[in-house]
Amino acid sequence: MFRSRHHEGERVNPLGIVVPLGEPRGSADGLERLQKLVGQDMGGVNRIILDKALSDVEMIPELAHHLIDSGGKRLRPMLTIAAAKLSGYKGEGHITLAATVEFMHTATLLHDDVVDESDFRRGKKAARLLWGNQASVLVGDFLLGQAFRMMVGVGSMEALRILSNAAAVIAEGEVMQLAAAKDLTTTEDAHLAIINAKTAALFSAAGEVGAAIAERPAVEQAALSSYGKMLGIAFQLVDDALDYSGDTQKLGKSVGDDFREGKITLPVILAYRRGSDAERAFWRRTVADEDVGEDDLATAMRLMQTHNAISATLERARHYGSMAKDALAIFPESEAKSALLEVVDFCTSRAN
Amino acid sequence: MFRSRHHEGERVNPLGIVVPLGEPRGSADGLERLQKLVGQDMGGVNRIILDKALSDVEMIPELAHHLIDSGGKRLRPMLTIAAAKLSGYKGEGHITLAATVEFMHTATLLHDDVVDESDFRRGKKAARLLWGNQASVLVGDFLLGQAFRMMVGVGSMEALRILSNAAAVIAEGEVMQLAAAKDLTTTEDAHLAIINAKTAALFSAAGEVGAAIAERPAVEQAALSSYGKMLGIAFQLVDDALDYSGDTQKLGKSVGDDFREGKITLPVILAYRRGSDAERAFWRRTVADEDVGEDDLATAMRLMQTHNAISATLERARHYGSMAKDALAIFPESEAKSALLEVVDFCTSRAN
Repeated sequence: MFRSRHHEGERVNPLGIVVPLGEPRGSADGLERLQKLVGQDMGGVNRIILDKALSDVEMIPELAHHLIDSGGKRLRPMLTIAAAKLSGYKGEGHITLAATVEFMHTATLLHDDVVDESDFRRGKKAARLLWGNQASVLVGDFLLGQAFRMMVGVGSMEALRILSNAAAVIAEGEVMQLAAAKDLTTTEDAHLAIINAKTAALFSAAGEVGAAIAERPAVEQAALSSYGKMLGIAFQLVDDALDYSGDTQKLGKSVGDDFREGKITLPVILAYRRGSDAERAFWRRTVADEDVGEDDLATAMRLMQTHNAISATLERARHYGSMAKDALAIFPESEAKSALLEVVDFCTSRAN
Repeated sequence: MFRSRHHEGERVNPLGIVVPLGEPRGSADGLERLQKLVGQDMGGVNRIILDKALSDVEMIPELAHHLIDSGGKRLRPMLTIAAAKLSGYKGEGHITLAATVEFMHTATLLHDDVVDESDFRRGKKAARLLWGNQASVLVGDFLLGQAFRMMVGVGSMEALRILSNAAAVIAEGEVMQLAAAKDLTTTEDAHLAIINAKTAALFSAAGEVGAAIAERPAVEQAALSSYGKMLGIAFQLVDDALDYSGDTQKLGKSVGDDFREGKITLPVILAYRRGSDAERAFWRRTVADEDVGEDDLATAMRLMQTHNAISATLERARHYGSMAKDALAIFPESEAKSALLEVVDFCTSRAN
């Protein structure tokens, strides 16, 4: 049995605090500039999310809200709003597009939890345990269909192109991950292709549509697409590193979750590749065969220390973070640009 | 455990005959006029389907082809082609749209089989048994994403509106069905709403996009939408009736499959509603609790006979078939119109 769900650091307190929609989230968490910039528009995003998760079929809003209300950071829709502001967009379309980005993300989470047989999501019981795998698959499909319906309502063919492309690429990335599951010999390169598709593609689209809706030149659209993609990779890598090194209290998730679920992440790939034969046997037993004893997490963390697997992963993340920042260099200084740069620092510095 | 997958009479011989793509399917099955009309364009549809199911991620084309090659009738994409011809469309966009309609259908089938824990589809082992539920969910997502990407390529915002709407409604219908699973007291009315959403919405969209791509007036678009919807309902009702009355040999599916899987279909709803207390207890034991003994199918069929549940279901189907035909009355005579009328006869007469 393999487990491979997203793990993007969005889980909150394991006790399951529900953050009411519309209130500022995670203040003083290093995203102040961004939150100030997008705060008002995000109120609109949240209203659209509430409205579009409605259905006469009761199970749909019930299940959707379970996840929607559970306090994700809404980083992706915030990127869309900020990118639209950076692009000088004056209309309302970016608000709906930001909501579709969050719906696409939510649909992916619902399906991921089914695929990975996960028991928890954002510190709450996974929807599939409460409503069943069946409902999670179907409500995910509904949210995806609804997302496309909302995009059509905005009327930008370019935004539709970007987001439909992301939808196909994300699914492709998930299948890639499934096919590579438990394969400790996966190269860093191949692993990066998976992260690129399953995580970075939506970050990239979230940024790019902000420029597309503003009908900015191709070079600016490409800059925001590239910014999002590089940020998404950095975000995922830091998240994967934190799982073996973070502070459970501060993180709001348990160190070692990925290890116990046998996930192939970059820290594991590097420790395996750099390790001795005996160490590789350890990784095969624990991660590939999921035969994990009491002391194994400590051993895993020690091996990563020995081989600098965590510091190398964070170094890689900083590399992609730098690329994200440089992608924005073509834009003149502005509040929006500062906010987007701050997001990169937020993503890479939360590891320290 | 409930089972509720589509069952639209598309299953072929249980031995699993694979009909090669591009060849005429099911000749002499009552769809000759339609097949002659759309034959050449369907060659193009099949080429697009093959091309767009490709991916560097091997599991995707493998799994997609398992289903794509297994000999469905391709009724839905044929409707799109025929509707475009009826609308005098001269471009190529209808061919891609027809392929997206089939992709949406295929994605639904993949997810349905997971939701219903089905073991067979179109006379072959269900994909989920060969590649796992995980891959079926994700490849379904890929095909749906790919379908939207293809629609965007066609560039008709109206077609996008119609098909994205259908995607959300279909998923809504599937959730409705899940919520009503095992509820023998479901009214015919409520059951119809489910069929309307889960089956008829795609038939409706398949017809409507044919007029939309040709930029025909709203009244013609509405006519083809209505035609598809009524046809879809008739199609599903006949299929449900055949499951209790058909000729296994001729049908290419086993009589009693729905009964053994405990599906709530109109014949069951009517027999339950019209039955005595003792008979209702029988239906609760067999269909709701899935406690089915050797003689129970014979009893079920006898009870349906007693209460005219099958003949009433077919009568209902003919009613919707008539509405489908009348929806087309505004169009002048043409080969395309004759073919579309023939489809209605095909759907309702296969029950005789």
